[in-house]
Amino acid sequence: MTAPPVPVSLLGLRLLATAQALPARVVPTAEVAALCGVPADVAQKRSGVRERRWLSGDESALSLGAQAARTALATAGLNVTDVDVLLNASGSQLQPIPDGAALFARELGLRGAATYSLHGTCLSFLLALQHAALLIHAGQARHVLIISTEAGSLGLNPAQPESTLLIGDGAAAVLLGPAERPGQGLIAARIETYPEGADHTRIRGGGTLLTPQNPRAEHRDFTFDMQGLQVLKLASRVVPGFLERLRPGLSTGLPGIDRVIPHQASQAGLDLLQRYGWPADRVEVTLPTLGNVIAASLPLTLHQAVTGRRLGEGQTALLVGTGAGLIAGGVIWAL
Amino acid sequence: MTAPPVPVSLLGLRLLATAQALPARVVPTAEVAALCGVPADVAQKRSGVRERRWLSGDESALSLGAQAARTALATAGLNVTDVDVLLNASGSQLQPIPDGAALFARELGLRGAATYSLHGTCLSFLLALQHAALLIHAGQARHVLIISTEAGSLGLNPAQPESTLLIGDGAAAVLLGPAERPGQGLIAARIETYPEGADHTRIRGGGTLLTPQNPRAEHRDFTFDMQGLQVLKLASRVVPGFLERLRPGLSTGLPGIDRVIPHQASQAGLDLLQRYGWPADRVEVTLPTLGNVIAASLPLTLHQAVTGRRLGEGQTALLVGTGAGLIAGGVIWAL
Repeated sequence: MTAPPVPVSLLGLRLLATAQALPARVVPTAEVAALCGVPADVAQKRSGVRERRWLSGDESALSLGAQAARTALATAGLNVTDVDVLLNASGSQLQPIPDGAALFARELGLRGAATYSLHGTCLSFLLALQHAALLIHAGQARHVLIISTEAGSLGLNPAQPESTLLIGDGAAAVLLGPAERPGQGLIAARIETYPEGADHTRIRGGGTLLTPQNPRAEHRDFTFDMQGLQVLKLASRVVPGFLERLRPGLSTGLPGIDRVIPHQASQAGLDLLQRYGWPADRVEVTLPTLGNVIAASLPLTLHQAVTGRRLGEGQTALLVGTGAGLIAGGVIWAL
Repeated sequence: MTAPPVPVSLLGLRLLATAQALPARVVPTAEVAALCGVPADVAQKRSGVRERRWLSGDESALSLGAQAARTALATAGLNVTDVDVLLNASGSQLQPIPDGAALFARELGLRGAATYSLHGTCLSFLLALQHAALLIHAGQARHVLIISTEAGSLGLNPAQPESTLLIGDGAAAVLLGPAERPGQGLIAARIETYPEGADHTRIRGGGTLLTPQNPRAEHRDFTFDMQGLQVLKLASRVVPGFLERLRPGLSTGLPGIDRVIPHQASQAGLDLLQRYGWPADRVEVTLPTLGNVIAASLPLTLHQAVTGRRLGEGQTALLVGTGAGLIAGGVIWAL
């Protein structure tokens, strides 16, 4: 790029609450391994996932997302009518029309607020966080509610154990408001897309390029297809440069960062972080108990760090990850 | 809302180029009327559409969107490497994973830029325009490319003539850059969602609430379902108040507005605008020749106004419409 985006100096923003809503059903790795026809010990070692939650009964991505949102509002002591903007930041759609954010608004009884979606697969939450900061900083919104919810278990292909073992369902909600002190907010935000990786992680069918009713479509076209090794190879090449552009020094350490909230892409993906000189005890991990929950992984991992008191006001977090695209994204956030 | 979003005072922004890419195949209303089994004259009178474009041959929402983007870049005299942020602002998905913006980046040879999607069905372009203004105003991007592309003809149900007669395919691209003079940019932006209308316009199947492979799904679940009268009734109730909150006086006239670029929802929707005291000769219309092109209607209609020299630098436009949700949105833009 001849004119690269200037890093954010500061977009004032305050974290008001985080919340999660998980499916009731805990699925141990042995059960998924049997489904895929692979030995349980190999499955667990390769995936790094001991257990994950999958939807059952009446649960849906909609009900879980709404539940997480209600809990976040209650935690912040706010009413739904205090929400100016509701952002749906999920990797998967609830339904093609209307936008999922309107369905959440109906569930929550929110009327007259702005509701819409930001989408960048696994990094959708980062995009919504940056958008919320821009809105709040510009005085266009006071309270922004972000919902990330996933039902990836509905689109798995057991013939591909690599992805089937990884994916979990769940939802998280995050409430944001104006900064209360100088220096509180997003210090840097950066997104870079490397579309030579566009076929490495995909669900081909379901959009206009291959509609659900297309006679040429096969069942597997509607399931998750991941070439994990290709993703890792491309990420290894582009992420160090990306990190240096986000903040110089990030590819060899954690300058000014108290806690890393990474996307929980895979065990191999998390292992890659060690290469950058990031100590494991500064990196928050939810992969073993939740799996990869697509766009909900980042806010679920943020929620775990905040409720576990490993991240709080006055500290600085690095939220970072890669997603299908291949898209690399990161935010440096002074809480 | 206890704390309604503050209207934008000014987000600096300049329109660098608009472009369109239309399918080659022109479909006259008589042909669609025959498909639906209704008389041609009735069909044309009710829909207000004389002809629309539908995809044929190798055309796709991806190829048209990329073509519009290339034309916009050429018109602005920019290279693809000048693009900092590429926003996909389409009502329909290209494919579920990766995000459609990454697929456009691959088509255009754009590497390392930020690419993602904003989604609010028919108003997706308005959301992307506001987001672009926030990014450019905050110094986080210099050149933002928005692509809106639709292939709604692939999801029509001839048993519902009302929507089948309306929908056309097509793509538009808009390039934005920093303001060059004081007062140039977005003066106001507002979105309001009224989710009691969530079922009035929908495609139920294709997301996680009703997956493509769900045995309970029927063909019609994947087609567009519109209760036009219900949409009109709800819009009549909420739009006047929405317009007054966007700019006082807009529900009874066009204070400070040179040209109206409305979403081309339907003939009845355009007729509604007369009630607000908006003279027909100040309102740009593409419905008769393009139909309702979902999220691409707003940028296609903007393109027609700009290339027809009915809107240019120094003038002020009102981009406005309603979409599935029901979502009402508007932007006042000093070009």
